[in-house]
Amino acid sequence: MAVYTEVTDEELSAFLATYDIGTVLSYKGIAEGVENTNYFLHTTQGFYILTLYEKRVNEADLPFFLGLMQHLAKRGLNCPLPVSNREGEPLGRLAGRPAVIITFLEGIAVRRPTAQHCAALGGALAKLHLAGHDFAMARPNALSLDGWAPLFAQAEAQADTVSSGLAERTRRELENLKKDWPVGLPSGIIHADLFTDNVFFIGPQVSGLIDFYFACTDAFAYDVAICLNAWCFEADASFNLTKGRAMLAGYQAVRALEPAEVEALPILCRGSAMRFMLTRLVDWLNVPPGALVKPKDPLEYDRKLNFHRHVKHAREYGLGA
Amino acid sequence: MAVYTEVTDEELSAFLATYDIGTVLSYKGIAEGVENTNYFLHTTQGFYILTLYEKRVNEADLPFFLGLMQHLAKRGLNCPLPVSNREGEPLGRLAGRPAVIITFLEGIAVRRPTAQHCAALGGALAKLHLAGHDFAMARPNALSLDGWAPLFAQAEAQADTVSSGLAERTRRELENLKKDWPVGLPSGIIHADLFTDNVFFIGPQVSGLIDFYFACTDAFAYDVAICLNAWCFEADASFNLTKGRAMLAGYQAVRALEPAEVEALPILCRGSAMRFMLTRLVDWLNVPPGALVKPKDPLEYDRKLNFHRHVKHAREYGLGA
Repeated sequence: MAVYTEVTDEELSAFLATYDIGTVLSYKGIAEGVENTNYFLHTTQGFYILTLYEKRVNEADLPFFLGLMQHLAKRGLNCPLPVSNREGEPLGRLAGRPAVIITFLEGIAVRRPTAQHCAALGGALAKLHLAGHDFAMARPNALSLDGWAPLFAQAEAQADTVSSGLAERTRRELENLKKDWPVGLPSGIIHADLFTDNVFFIGPQVSGLIDFYFACTDAFAYDVAICLNAWCFEADASFNLTKGRAMLAGYQAVRALEPAEVEALPILCRGSAMRFMLTRLVDWLNVPPGALVKPKDPLEYDRKLNFHRHVKHAREYGLGA
Repeated sequence: MAVYTEVTDEELSAFLATYDIGTVLSYKGIAEGVENTNYFLHTTQGFYILTLYEKRVNEADLPFFLGLMQHLAKRGLNCPLPVSNREGEPLGRLAGRPAVIITFLEGIAVRRPTAQHCAALGGALAKLHLAGHDFAMARPNALSLDGWAPLFAQAEAQADTVSSGLAERTRRELENLKKDWPVGLPSGIIHADLFTDNVFFIGPQVSGLIDFYFACTDAFAYDVAICLNAWCFEADASFNLTKGRAMLAGYQAVRALEPAEVEALPILCRGSAMRFMLTRLVDWLNVPPGALVKPKDPLEYDRKLNFHRHVKHAREYGLGA
């Protein structure tokens, strides 16, 4: 939620001169994007978002992310479309950073989604999975099973300062996940970070999906599990079955889950809760002095994990029999 | 440069329902405004800025600020126009804060103004002074002579930790300012904070002035002095006489400075440099842990003050003989 890199008006004008989108009328740093710097940009030709990639994004991954957005937009998905410069390149450099201009999407991120929003989100997620099927590039999910142990190693010694017993709970859970993690599920492009701030609505309709910078190749049902975690719990960590039902029905109306995916859903929910608990825990324990971003609470996901540990069947998430 | 107060989509929709400006299409927190929270707001009827006043703004001052903006806009000055709600009130409440919706101004803030920008700024400043002459409300300048000693008292003991000798230099300068501070100069509404980030340009023209939250009743020439400090120094604290000339000529083309104002300009420059040195010093010494805003360097204004101390006549700022 911050502007990490300041762009001067001269730098911006020079950068825009390499594009065919007019001259700048106004630009304002926007308080979105934990990973990157974003400006809202109005030119004589329209509205755009200017993104500068900060150090947390690996430059080598940018062709995958930008190519994916272009692919999905071509398939009719409402997602930001990277604008190519006069040389046909979507990726440029500005203020010492890799930078892109993407189209502006209208819509608002709902902070407290209703069941209706969850149903629409489920449908949009399934469409994303289908639209990605013929995208030629692949990117392994660095934040799945194999990534969790190294993450935990960074936080293990201090974990109990955050919550008593957290280290032991996590150790045991990681062992179980390793033992039971499913393989061979239907896979392809997943968003992998489809939290409420990355989904825009106009009224009850999804108007766009944004922030593809965790997108990767992994099991579709893992993406469903991430969304169950992000959309269907209440603030007190209770699971809202009505929202779960709505989301899963919305998803299945577009793409039916296979039996193996249904069976794996509880363990995938545990795994995805583990993923967000761990990255939040590492961030929580490593807040730099003077940080611009307030870290998110890892214990929210520890509590969700505890819920999932008691789930025996995907029905408990609201999946039809 | 931060969003201090998060506004949920439900809160925003309910707030907008009290206005006659359509329904929300998108809104994004913008990284502008050190004192307030600002959202860029797009509704079915147009573009706006939504401002939530944070604790540093005294609510009792808001009718003055909002009334002034409405007055200036009516006089043809390009400044944000507070939009009245269905009850005819510009001021509402949102997320527990006083809040207004103001019209969106196009234009970009130049980070490194040229002499041409300075000339245009001088003209815009003089127009502001003329446009304010029949505004009925008054607000004393809390950050002029009488306000400096209490500010310094908050910082004096630690001043030398910022720069060796700063406490003694400041004590001596405050005594001189008290002795020589001019009275009876032509006065009226001044902006009092017209830094480059508060002036928008489209090409070489000023397209708008914003951020009237330090506006008050004081000597016009004090506002000129603030702008000489803010616009005509280079990054190495050297004074750019070409820019000074351009700004003063731009100002005088609209409103001629009187002899008493010309004579007072050097001491007004010292005083206004003192004002920004002191507020920055206090902020510098009181950065809360986890602060979202990086404090500005007080020594920039200590160096400018040192320049002004050696000025004998307004000619040295570029004023025609």
